[in-house]
Amino acid sequence: MPATADTIHSLDHLDQLNQALESGAFIQVRRMLNSLPAPDVAHVIESSPPKTRAVIWRLIDIEREGEILPYLNDEIESQFLRNMDSEELLTITEGLEADDVADILQQLPDRVIREVLQLMDKQDRQRVEHVLSYPEDTAGGMMNTDAITVRAKTPLEVVLRYLRRHEELPEMTDNLIVVNRRDEYIGQLPLRKVLVSDPNITVREIMVTDVDAIPASMDDGEVATLFERNDWVSAPVIDEQGKLIGRITIDDVVDVIREDADHSLMSLAGLDEDEDTFAPVLQTAPRRAMWLGINLLTAFLASSVINMFEGTIDKVVALAILMPIVASMGGIAGTQTLTVVIRGMALGQVGSNNSGWLINKEFLVGIINGLCWSMIVAVAVTLWFDDTLIGMIIAGAMVINLVTAGLAGAVIPIALRRLNIDPALAGGVVLTTVTDVVGFMSFLGLATFFYM
Amino acid sequence: MPATADTIHSLDHLDQLNQALESGAFIQVRRMLNSLPAPDVAHVIESSPPKTRAVIWRLIDIEREGEILPYLNDEIESQFLRNMDSEELLTITEGLEADDVADILQQLPDRVIREVLQLMDKQDRQRVEHVLSYPEDTAGGMMNTDAITVRAKTPLEVVLRYLRRHEELPEMTDNLIVVNRRDEYIGQLPLRKVLVSDPNITVREIMVTDVDAIPASMDDGEVATLFERNDWVSAPVIDEQGKLIGRITIDDVVDVIREDADHSLMSLAGLDEDEDTFAPVLQTAPRRAMWLGINLLTAFLASSVINMFEGTIDKVVALAILMPIVASMGGIAGTQTLTVVIRGMALGQVGSNNSGWLINKEFLVGIINGLCWSMIVAVAVTLWFDDTLIGMIIAGAMVINLVTAGLAGAVIPIALRRLNIDPALAGGVVLTTVTDVVGFMSFLGLATFFYM
Repeated sequence: MPATADTIHSLDHLDQLNQALESGAFIQVRRMLNSLPAPDVAHVIESSPPKTRAVIWRLIDIEREGEILPYLNDEIESQFLRNMDSEELLTITEGLEADDVADILQQLPDRVIREVLQLMDKQDRQRVEHVLSYPEDTAGGMMNTDAITVRAKTPLEVVLRYLRRHEELPEMTDNLIVVNRRDEYIGQLPLRKVLVSDPNITVREIMVTDVDAIPASMDDGEVATLFERNDWVSAPVIDEQGKLIGRITIDDVVDVIREDADHSLMSLAGLDEDEDTFAPVLQTAPRRAMWLGINLLTAFLASSVINMFEGTIDKVVALAILMPIVASMGGIAGTQTLTVVIRGMALGQVGSNNSGWLINKEFLVGIINGLCWSMIVAVAVTLWFDDTLIGMIIAGAMVINLVTAGLAGAVIPIALRRLNIDPALAGGVVLTTVTDVVGFMSFLGLATFFYM
Repeated sequence: MPATADTIHSLDHLDQLNQALESGAFIQVRRMLNSLPAPDVAHVIESSPPKTRAVIWRLIDIEREGEILPYLNDEIESQFLRNMDSEELLTITEGLEADDVADILQQLPDRVIREVLQLMDKQDRQRVEHVLSYPEDTAGGMMNTDAITVRAKTPLEVVLRYLRRHEELPEMTDNLIVVNRRDEYIGQLPLRKVLVSDPNITVREIMVTDVDAIPASMDDGEVATLFERNDWVSAPVIDEQGKLIGRITIDDVVDVIREDADHSLMSLAGLDEDEDTFAPVLQTAPRRAMWLGINLLTAFLASSVINMFEGTIDKVVALAILMPIVASMGGIAGTQTLTVVIRGMALGQVGSNNSGWLINKEFLVGIINGLCWSMIVAVAVTLWFDDTLIGMIIAGAMVINLVTAGLAGAVIPIALRRLNIDPALAGGVVLTTVTDVVGFMSFLGLATFFYM
């Protein structure tokens, strides 16, 4: 999709649009919307509260809806789709690439998918069915079916003539794909080599054969890693028999990179990376409630630990005042380690060969920072309560908790991953449970030992 | 850089390499390293503890070092660079693209930069100096100087002949760039149009003029947004006079997207997105210490709030047992809101036009979840302590704190951004200070009112 000259300033459009919307100038809004590139319209929709969203969607020409949908967050996309019948769905999917059609259909109930597929012409249906047959988060689910193929023995001159028969090459075509007569992948023919070569030589002489094609079953995160490492713009996808079935382009890979990077951030707060910033209150509240419930259980667990030392607190009330310091410093130190390890895992850096080193490192960092800060806290608390013993006790507890936090921050995500539990989602809860329990237990335990 | 057939399995290389390293088979390790593509070698280095890193670096051929450096994390890159003299630096930067050379030089002291530039030939020096004259995090700092330019009046046939004079076109060349005789940017000539067009027409007839070039001063995050929205593979960069000075390619944009996405995650834990997972203990400990110190201050602040209610706790020790529940639930609810808002800001969704709606929404979500969970907590606490009053008090405090958390989670990042303070870095600390202080104050305050 070509960007208009306005694109550079697209970030200002939102304000202008909102002013027009507020003043009820719907004709102006419609004109603005239909002159904006599809990704910018999607961004305007994503940045609007639900009511404005509905108004904007009604003002968009139906022919443009299909173009805009693939750029929307899954949650918003499926809301719009739910209100369409199969005829409308057919209209909006016309002219879209097979992977975008598949993405749209995947949001719908099976019955509707079958209806829409029935209405398509045979070639389109087969293409879309092919993409639909692979899970959304695999290479097969990401691919397009628009690859241009050539044969190795063809002279470049013939290739060039063949290309001229096209109206335009598919977007992001940097390579033609070389296949044999059984459609099996052999290699790639970079256009930037075609353009500098003598037209009389054959494809075989300049094709690149040392780049493997991507198996359709490969996980989308792995696909993204390959693109990032090798600076690819597009890559061929093959099925189990080695037959070429499509190609993946960098624009879809960028979406995966963005989502994977968001996943760690959002999961640590118990949120989904598809979370819609402007979802209605009644949709957001129940989703958040679940996470609060889980954390409530761990908070009660921490309270029950404190409860064990009721007698000690009753005698030395300063303990109640100081105990949150020990717990919270453990939480902070542990979260730092957890975040580094989770990011390292997301980047594919942490494996069985180095996790031992990493755990050991975080243990040592915990000891150093535990000793350093506990001394400062010891002095501060001793001065505050004019009591050396309580200063010593809190220092001891802080060393114990910061060392535990370093260890737990590294061990928990590594262990969770071995158990096939998402470390970003479960890691934070398990970690703060550990640092709270150990924090309260070490501080109040030491106090009970010395005071009672 | 072409990927070898091994690339697909590159994630296994690390284990093999480590086995070879451990068994001291250095000749084998050297062979393995030099057969791996540069990004994979960089990944192996990033995934290794410091000692292994040094061994690996020594085993890499010097001619390959320059190729590998741009793929390394800035921190590790500058460590390796610090040990080189200007002759070595010149050797490794030979054959690199101007933006990669600039990236390398930017890590070095001014004196060394001048020395290396002196040693370069004139053309290379000018190119690199040009890139160096723009800040690293702008379009000018990201660009390459390898754009191929054509004039609008040229027939395609001549363009094709001109291209054939090149050995190979620069990587990621999807467009030639059309300039006038003053080198001012006019438009782009997509190769995928050149290939399907009649060679007798001129560039003017098929060039694309509705895409603006990127100003060299544009922030790299904005550049990334434009690439993502418009599915670009490369884009031209112009100076203030509208003269073409280079082009940006998607591979460098992907790095920016990855770093920006990591920024929110890492900053929330007080970490830098360049943080090296396997940095030595003595390097990591002082960095983490700073953040612990800031959080220690806020923990003392929370303790001083509790201290105000010493008398009440002394009388009703159950308060000490239950107070962490109120504070921690507020912290969790607030962090959820904060994370959603920070992510929305990073995606450019949150602006002055919708932040009011967002704050209002999070306030309502806080009320709903506050009421919902406080009732459950009220029942649980009443049963636990066989005391209805304490159940009512904790419920009231939880409603107050969850509503505050929702409001604070939305208002704090919005306010921090207005003050030009990074919301991802400062947001978490300010938020937990608020939820701790309000949590303890509301719970102990209500208790003091009803018990004393």
